[in-house]
Parts: sequence; C-alpha cells; structure tokens
Amino acid sequence: MMEHIRTPKVENVRLIDRTAPRKATVGTLYLSATHTIFVENNPETRRETWVLHSMVASVERPPTTPSGSHLVVHTKNFQVVQLLIPQERDAMDVQASLARLSHPEKYSELYCLSINPNANKEEREESWSFLDLQADYRRMGVPNNLWVSTPANSEYRVCDTYPSELFVPKSATPPVIVGSSKFRSRGRLPVLTYFHQDTLAAICRCSQPLSGFSARSQEDEQMLEAIMKSNPGSDYIYVVDTRPKLNAMANRAAGKGYENEDHYTNIKLQFIGIENIHVMRNSQQKIIDVGELKTPSMGDFLWGLESSGWLKHIKAVLDAGVFIAKAVAEEGISVVVHCSDGWDRTAQACSVASVLLEPYYRTMKGLMLLIERDWVSFGHKFSHRYSHLEGDPKEVSPVIDQFLECVWQLSEQFPCAFEFNERFLVQLHRHVYSCQYGNFLGNSQKERRDMGLRERTHSLWPQLWKDRAQYANPLYRADHTQTQGMLRPNTTPYCFKMWKGMYNRVEKSAPPRQMPTDLLTAVREETQQLEEELTNHQEVAPGGTAHPGTKQEDCSPDEGDQTKGNAGQRKTNKVCEEECRPGGLAPPTGDGPFTSHPQDYFPSQGGPPGPAMILPLGPPKGPGPDPDDLSSACSDMESGVADLSSRSSSGGDDEAI
Amino acid sequence: MMEHIRTPKVENVRLIDRTAPRKATVGTLYLSATHTIFVENNPETRRETWVLHSMVASVERPPTTPSGSHLVVHTKNFQVVQLLIPQERDAMDVQASLARLSHPEKYSELYCLSINPNANKEEREESWSFLDLQADYRRMGVPNNLWVSTPANSEYRVCDTYPSELFVPKSATPPVIVGSSKFRSRGRLPVLTYFHQDTLAAICRCSQPLSGFSARSQEDEQMLEAIMKSNPGSDYIYVVDTRPKLNAMANRAAGKGYENEDHYTNIKLQFIGIENIHVMRNSQQKIIDVGELKTPSMGDFLWGLESSGWLKHIKAVLDAGVFIAKAVAEEGISVVVHCSDGWDRTAQACSVASVLLEPYYRTMKGLMLLIERDWVSFGHKFSHRYSHLEGDPKEVSPVIDQFLECVWQLSEQFPCAFEFNERFLVQLHRHVYSCQYGNFLGNSQKERRDMGLRERTHSLWPQLWKDRAQYANPLYRADHTQTQGMLRPNTTPYCFKMWKGMYNRVEKSAPPRQMPTDLLTAVREETQQLEEELTNHQEVAPGGTAHPGTKQEDCSPDEGDQTKGNAGQRKTNKVCEEECRPGGLAPPTGDGPFTSHPQDYFPSQGGPPGPAMILPLGPPKGPGPDPDDLSSACSDMESGVADLSSRSSSGGDDEAI
Repeated sequence: MMEHIRTPKVENVRLIDRTAPRKATVGTLYLSATHTIFVENNPETRRETWVLHSMVASVERPPTTPSGSHLVVHTKNFQVVQLLIPQERDAMDVQASLARLSHPEKYSELYCLSINPNANKEEREESWSFLDLQADYRRMGVPNNLWVSTPANSEYRVCDTYPSELFVPKSATPPVIVGSSKFRSRGRLPVLTYFHQDTLAAICRCSQPLSGFSARSQEDEQMLEAIMKSNPGSDYIYVVDTRPKLNAMANRAAGKGYENEDHYTNIKLQFIGIENIHVMRNSQQKIIDVGELKTPSMGDFLWGLESSGWLKHIKAVLDAGVFIAKAVAEEGISVVVHCSDGWDRTAQACSVASVLLEPYYRTMKGLMLLIERDWVSFGHKFSHRYSHLEGDPKEVSPVIDQFLECVWQLSEQFPCAFEFNERFLVQLHRHVYSCQYGNFLGNSQKERRDMGLRERTHSLWPQLWKDRAQYANPLYRADHTQTQGMLRPNTTPYCFKMWKGMYNRVEKSAPPRQMPTDLLTAVREETQQLEEELTNHQEVAPGGTAHPGTKQEDCSPDEGDQTKGNAGQRKTNKVCEEECRPGGLAPPTGDGPFTSHPQDYFPSQGGPPGPAMILPLGPPKGPGPDPDDLSSACSDMESGVADLSSRSSSGGDDEAI
Repeated sequence: MMEHIRTPKVENVRLIDRTAPRKATVGTLYLSATHTIFVENNPETRRETWVLHSMVASVERPPTTPSGSHLVVHTKNFQVVQLLIPQERDAMDVQASLARLSHPEKYSELYCLSINPNANKEEREESWSFLDLQADYRRMGVPNNLWVSTPANSEYRVCDTYPSELFVPKSATPPVIVGSSKFRSRGRLPVLTYFHQDTLAAICRCSQPLSGFSARSQEDEQMLEAIMKSNPGSDYIYVVDTRPKLNAMANRAAGKGYENEDHYTNIKLQFIGIENIHVMRNSQQKIIDVGELKTPSMGDFLWGLESSGWLKHIKAVLDAGVFIAKAVAEEGISVVVHCSDGWDRTAQACSVASVLLEPYYRTMKGLMLLIERDWVSFGHKFSHRYSHLEGDPKEVSPVIDQFLECVWQLSEQFPCAFEFNERFLVQLHRHVYSCQYGNFLGNSQKERRDMGLRERTHSLWPQLWKDRAQYANPLYRADHTQTQGMLRPNTTPYCFKMWKGMYNRVEKSAPPRQMPTDLLTAVREETQQLEEELTNHQEVAPGGTAHPGTKQEDCSPDEGDQTKGNAGQRKTNKVCEEECRPGGLAPPTGDGPFTSHPQDYFPSQGGPPGPAMILPLGPPKGPGPDPDDLSSACSDMESGVADLSSRSSSGGDDEAI
C-alpha cells in the first residue's frame, strides 16, 4: 500500500475538537501503510491519535478556508476526526491517499493479510482452534437420534455458501437433501441451527423456496415434513418468513417467494416484516447523522431519531427473535426461518432467538460461538456487507450491526443476564469492519478456506478472550432466575433507546457517563478478595464453616482464572475510577508477540514516544493488540480512533477524542 | 366523606387488563371513605386492588356497551384502572361518588387530617422532629461571618410565603431587608438558600423585581450589592432569571420584570428559558398520553415524545441547575435566582443546583432536607400545584414532578452517585399528591402553622426513612470520586429519555424490566455478610490483619444500622428475585401503631383477608404505612394503585396492575 501514500507527513496540522471548534491541537500528521497518525506538538504530552485506514468510511474536504483546508474523516464505527491542514495541496494529497488506502481492491491489501503468517505460527494455529463449533452443537445435544450430521456438503457441492457440516433430520435421505437444496434460492436448504433440549424443538434456517406462483418440490416438502417429525411432540412447524409479506409476494414474479400452505401440510406461515438491506442502509445513515449533530435541540434529536426509522427496524429484528424463541421454548414447536437468500435477516432472527433461549450465548464465549455459527459458518456475506474491498455499494448494509444492537437493547433490559458489557459489543462491531483478523474476511466458509485464511491470518477470538477483564459485566449474575431461563423482553417502543455508546460516543469536552460496570467491577473484586480471605481464615480458624451464601460461584460466575491477579485488575479499575483517562493507563504488559508501541510501526530510532520517522516500513508485525485496543481499555470505547497518550503522563486533559 | 358514597358496593365488576382487554378479573368493588377497593371473587387468591381517593385524577365513563358501563380511572401518578360495571346506574353512582371523593373541598376532608391526632401523639411529635432544617444550614456553615439569620420574618411580616428564619448577608440592614422586600413581587426578597463552603459562593433566591420599565429601589440594589460583598473573592454576581427573556420583558408592562444592569452594578444577567406552569401542564398531559398509548408503533412513541416537548423542558430545568452549580463551584461566583414569584422555576433551579453541588443532597435524608428547604419552607404552593383541594385548574402544574425527574435523569447518568433508587423518587412524587401526611399541605410555612399541621398530622419523612431498605441504590458508592464532587452531567439531548418508571409503568402482562438495583442489593448484602464473617474470623484467628480494602465503609456507605438485620433484608430481596410478586411478600411487621391490613379500614369480623363489611367506618387509624406502600415494596413501584394479594399465597400470577 506504500505506493498510495502521496504525502507521508504534514506539519502544523490542527486536530479540531468538534464540540468546541476553537479548541484545537497543533501537531504533525503521518500516513503509514496501515494508520493515519496525528502527533501533538506539545513535547510534554505528545498525545497521539491513530486511525486505522480500514476503519475509514469517508474523507470529506469542505471548501478551503483562509486558514487552510479541512478534512473530515468519518470512520466505519461512527466516529469523526476533523483536521485542518494549512496547504490545500497537502489536504488534497492526504485525502487522495486516504481514499485509496481505505478502499483496498484486493484481499491481499488487507491488514490481516499483510502480516508474515509464520512469524507466530504456533500462536496463529492455536488462535484458530480457540472456538470449536462442533463442540457447541454437542453442547446442545446434536447429533442425537433426531438430528444427524450429513456429509452431503463436505465439499460445498450442495451449497457453496453453507458450512461443510450440516445437521438435518435423521429421516432426511440424500435425495431429499439434494432435492430440497435445488428448490431453494442459492441451494440454501433447511438445516438445523439451534436445538432446544428442553422441548426437543429446533430452529432451522434456509433461503426462500423457488416456488414462483405455483412450482413445488416433493423433496422440499418432505424436508419440512422431516423437520416436523424430528420434534416428536408436535404436529406442525412454523415457517417464519422474516420479510414483509409484500416483499415475499413480489419475489414470486422472479420464480421465488414463499411456501404455499396448500402444498406444505402442517406448516404455519408467519411473516415478520424486517425490511431489506437497502432500507436498513439508508436508515442507519440517518441515525449516524443524528448522532453527529453538533448542538441538536431536543426536537432535532427526537425528530431525527423517529424519522431515521432505526429503532423501528431494531424492534422488528428483536420481535422476530422473540417469536421464534417463544415458539421453541413455550410452545415446543420447531421453526424454519428464512428471508430471501437466508443470510441476512435469517441470521439476525436465528441468532437473536438463540440469545433469548440459551444463557450460554449471553456469555462472551457463547456469543463468539453464536457469531461463528449463525453468521460466519452460514455464509453471511461479511466482505460485501461491511465493504472490506472496493465493491458494489448496494451490497453494503449494517446487518450484524443490528444484531449487536439487539443484544445491547436486551442487555439494557436485562442488565444482569449478560456476562459481557457494552464495550464487548462495540469491539465486536469494530472488528467486523477492521480486517485486523481473518475471521470475517470473505463471504462464506468456502471462500475463507480457498483463501487459506487459517494459514495466513490470526483469529480474533483468543484476543478478545485475553482482554476479557475489560469486557466483563460486573452486574452479571449467572445464578439468577432471569439469567438462567429464556429472556422474555418487553418490546413495546418505550423500551428502546438510541445506542449512544455506538452512535454518539462521548466527545472530548463532554463528561463521560458514569459507567456502573466500571465501578462495580471494583465492588465485585472486593467481594472476591473477601471470599478468598475468608477462605484463608476458615482454613486457619478451626471449626469455621463456610456460609452457604459465600461460596465462590455466587459472586464470580466467570472462569476461575479471572479471580486471580487481583492486583493487576485493581490497577485497571483504578484507572477507570480516575475518569478513564488514557493518560492514566499502565504501560502495555508486552506479553505475546505483538506490542503496541508506535515505534513498532516505524523504524525505531530510540527517540521519544511517537513515530520516530515518517516513512513507514510497511506491514506491522502482527494484528493485535492494536494500539486502539489499549485506548479502548479504559476510554469511552474508542476503537476506530484511538488516542495513545504518553503513558507516563498523569493525564491532565488526556482524553480520547 | 361518608355522605358522598352513593353506592358502597357493586358486585360482578370486571377489572380489565388494559394491555389484554379480554383478560379480566371478576370481583366486587367497594367504596370506602378513603379508598376504592376491588376484591377479586376467586376465593383462592382474593386479590385486591386499592386506589386511594386522593390519588384519583379523573374518572371517565365511555358510552355504555351491551356488557355494561366502563369506568376509566386515571390516577395522579399516571396509572390507569379500567372497570366494567354491569349496570349503568351503578357506574354512574360510582363515578359521581369518586368525582366528589377525589375532589375534597376543605382541608379537613383530607386523609391526613381525618386521623385522630392524639392516637399516637408521641410518634406524631417525633415524626416532625425527624428533619432539622437549621442543622442543615449549620452543616453548610451558615450562619457564619458572611451570612446571618435575620429575625425580620419571624412573624411572617416581611413575606408571608417565606420561612420565618431567613439568612441574609451580614451587611444587610433591616431597612435594606424591608426595602428590598417591598421591591420584590410578593415581598420575596433575595435570601440565601445554599452556601458553598469551598468557594464561599452562595445561591440566593427571590422573586422578580417590581421594576417595570424604569422603577428602581436603592435598598434592593444594596441587597444585591451586599450579596456580592458576602463573597470575598468576587466582584460580581450572576442574576439568573429562569424565564425566557420574552416572558420577563412582558412582565414589565405589569410593573414587574427583571434587573436593569444599569442600576444594579456588578451583576451579570442570565436568562435560562424555562417555560411557565401552563406550558408545563400541557406538556405533561401529552407525555402522560404517550405513556398510556395501548399498542403504539415506534413512530407513535417517538413522535409523541418529541411533540410533547416534555424532555425539552426537563433539559431546560437541568441546564438551569448546571449553570448555577458551575458558577458557584467552578467560578466561585454567587448567584441570585428568580423567576416571576420565585416559587416554581426558582425552586427547581436552586434545588437541582444543590443536588449537583452537594453529595449530601444525593442521599435519602439529604434529598428530604432539600425538598423541605427549597420547596416546603420557601413557599412552593403544593396545595395549588398538586390540586389537593377543588380549585383553579390553571394553578395546577407538575413543578416538583420536573425536579424529581431531573434527579432521576441524573441518576441514570450517574448511577453510583445517589443513595436512593428510582422507587424513592416515585414514592416522593406519590406523597406530594396523596395527602396521607401533613408535609405538603397548604402553600406556605405560615399556612401550615396556621392549620396546626404538626399538631394534627404526621410527617412523611420518618416513614420513608423506616422503609429505606427498599429505597436503597446498591450501586451507590459514597467514596467514589464522581460521587464526592460536583456532578457535571452531559445535557445534550442524547442523554435524556422518557421516564418509563413514571409514565409507562410495567403493566401486568408485560414482563418487568430486570432491576439491577434489586439484584445488586443481594450482592451487596453478601459482601457485607462476608465482611462481618471475615471480621469474626479475624478476631478468632490471631495475627489476622484487616486488608485496607475490606473495611466496612468501602461497601456500606449507608448508616451502620442498615447493615444489621441481614436476615430480614435477605427475605425482601428474595421476593424481589422472585420477579417481584406481591404474593410473595412477607406479612407486615406490625411495628408501630399503623397496620395495613384491609380489616383496619373496615370493622373487623375476624374473617378472611379483604374487606369484611362494606360499610366503611370512616377514617382509618393512621396515615401509614398505607397498604399501597406494602405493594410498592416489591412491585414495579406501584403507589397510587396497589394490589394487596392474600399474603399467604405463594403468588402464581399475583402481580400489581
């Protein structure tokens, strides 16, 4: 990417505080192969702001003013960086460079693929074995005497956007599997995605049938019959078409459509009315605009929120999940879910239902597995939807954004039911776009296999797991009745709100919202420490009996190893208590092969912190932890934009932008 | 009030679930002197719903249907009870009775004055000495060598709506006090309400000057000069006129208005733009309507929220408080606050500023004292604003509602900064309207003294204090930096939301929002218990040293006595964990002279729980705890409407409406 950098360094650039335009920091702007970096001139702080190129959504250049040219950088995670560059020529060069650097044309240009795959071979290989999808199917009791694994798709011959391993009803013969596949858009036949052991009901997913106005397929009808029969206690199934009924009907003209209840006996068809990717893309742009309003009145804000339609769509996705979850858990009826191709709305509806049904998916690892299953393995088109490469803008749509937001809205309604906090969701969102890890590249399992991503990139999941302390929700109570069972959210409009942590992150001059999670982590740790001390004392004092309410599980539902190293954790919290100033951050621990000093991205000259030379040497040594992650550890969840202050500073006004 | 009951009992009445109109409970409706009571026929549950007459805002009777006449009862705390009465005649009688019972014409008809004042004389007297306003002034360092108490108003001769004790600048002579008073609307001269020890800046309050277009008063100018000089480090003061500037200007035509900066040297005039009581009354009706929508779309909800204007007004009140608090704490400049008469917007702005400035006012007792000072003692017209008696509907306005909501919005932004939870605010709101206690009767201290309320009624405060366990916010961290200092809220529109717990309480069929507070109370108690056990063990085990992080203050910022009686508290939490079913409530403890069995409101016949006879015997024995309080202890903060289930029931679907 080096050849796209027209100007690697611009001096006397001003970084503008958008909420207080007169406040600006003067510094130098550097363009590396991977990041745009602003380094403050002030020799005492040398505050740095890093923007990963792959997170850049657009760079606007308003008309030049007497004081120079403004550049307004919008990131894919809805942050805005505004620069004032003295010379128009420099501004044009930076804009052109960024336009190119942020729009890679080949996968090989992406961050995660610009790393030497064998530099950390062992860690790379380990990273890919961190999650085990098969084990998750086993956890939910699959395969069993109702649902079996079929080798039909082992070479992606039945459906090239499906995973190689599929679970189907035991009674579904190969001709039924193949025949059903042929009668479904893109060959995406109905297969199992979730099995509910309590009721034996299943959630299956597929694409729309190629029914047109009258076509039918005996095999497809048999497949749905087999699904129904795989649930011994029921005599019908729901077919949930997540589209608005009008859209489904319109598809008939193209030879597609929906199941005819006259042909499929024993199905109940239900339309949900989630709008298509184009409606969602437009709606999200509107909510982004609302979040970026500079000094909106209450009317501007509420009018914008309403007219964006965004929360209406979030509610529709959540309602789809609720319908499916209730059918499975309360009625004990299996559900077949589809939309058009079965990779957008279907993924949303199935994964929301899983979060509602299964407490495990409300843990960090569980949510990773759920995304790995319902999104990654089932061929959600990550590279198209999240614009990893220059491509058709009509393919772009915030589909997984909406899923993550549904989880967030649920976590607001059930604050004790989720092991992770908002930061975890924000970080997941970021990495869907960032391409720092190989997990979300491509559009299907087959594409990822053909690209050899496991051999060439690292997986995100172990990195998130390693950082789990900062993603922990201290309100989480694994043993609580509401946490254990199915979540039954209230989905009246009163219960939805704008996701401020995503669309309107706290700006520099505005005080951060007090995060109960940060503060409570401290309480929780104190509790754990007390428990440990109590245990010690009980061992010392003969006759001491543990109170039933004091056993460790009660207060530390996490993995045991998280209860260790209190001293280190306390340090992190201490920082959070000091109003989350990045300046208060401890130096990176340096464990693992990836460090995060700016020097690592530039040839080291033993100079002060900050880019020591302007000519970037190309790809960094590894994918993570990205410097941004450090900042986000204790800032208001910055991610696309990070501010790396000199870490020894006691941090007067060192704050993330 | 007995003579107003046209029909004391109606059978075969249906209590309608508004969210699921087909679900209805059949039972008997009773009208007592103080409550309307619905008792379910089902002999197993005998579920009861009590509505205090003084909480009834209106009773609508839509056109009669074949199945009978509907009565829709709206309460003053925004709940709705819908009844279906078979005979139109009965419905008309109930409606007419309720219309009269809910609109008392004389103070003596009010609940708190219908109690024999000498039945519990000692407790009554004690109840009024629970709060000590003088002590609170002393706590903030007043009187001192800058501010002194003046006897000028000891007999309410200078200002009959002010408290008898006033604090004024030491240099303010009696002629200045009297002269300033004469130049202020209703004689409400500038006096101290809050003193900030850190900066020596003060908040003073008054009404608008009688300046018209050109009038001036030397004494009033001297008074403001004296206020300025009482703050040694400053050479000006702010005069905050909380009204929109246009309104203030319009007042000049009536010989009122605002300070002329040419006459008052060294003032900086600041208009804030809080609208008047009529605008607020209309706006609140709209937000109530939004909260009562039956199945709103997201658009209906957001459009209604925006067009109500309610959050815009809440923001204006909060902004006023922020302006004052920053002036006092950050600039060290004293502020004189007024609106028109200085008893509505001025009370709001001053009390919000106090909450922001002083952590003590974020505790339960502190908030009580603040209301006692800025609202009760300074002549906020409770009886007019909250329609305690039949009167001019144009005098009614939700002024204190807005203050309580500002506190709630702050508590959402700073969840660890408040000792109390949402329930406390909801309960305060209820009692402003309920007239079960004498605190809020009348419109000024003088009126209350003349009515002899201390001799004839009980005070609310000790009752709330007694119930403090249920109002405690387990997230409260008294030792946290953000809790200790001044709160600096973000008041961008993004940070405001509809107060669902006030305007859209959880209905029967909708699942309650998971309350982190309820759940965390359990964690907190476990922590306390652990600490106690650890302490015990340390006493047993020689050489045990307390870890600095484990001392009791760290986790139990409350009064020490709250850490006792864990067993009892655990029981309450247990109930909350069981999804707050009132049916799971423990029987009332029966301490104190007031019991809350329905029998106490009716002649006891030793029968089963529930009204044993239909003819109420008149006033109950005491003001509280009201049966409603019991229900609210663990419901979704019901108050005006309560549901008293048979308490031995294990509570299948016993839920508050």
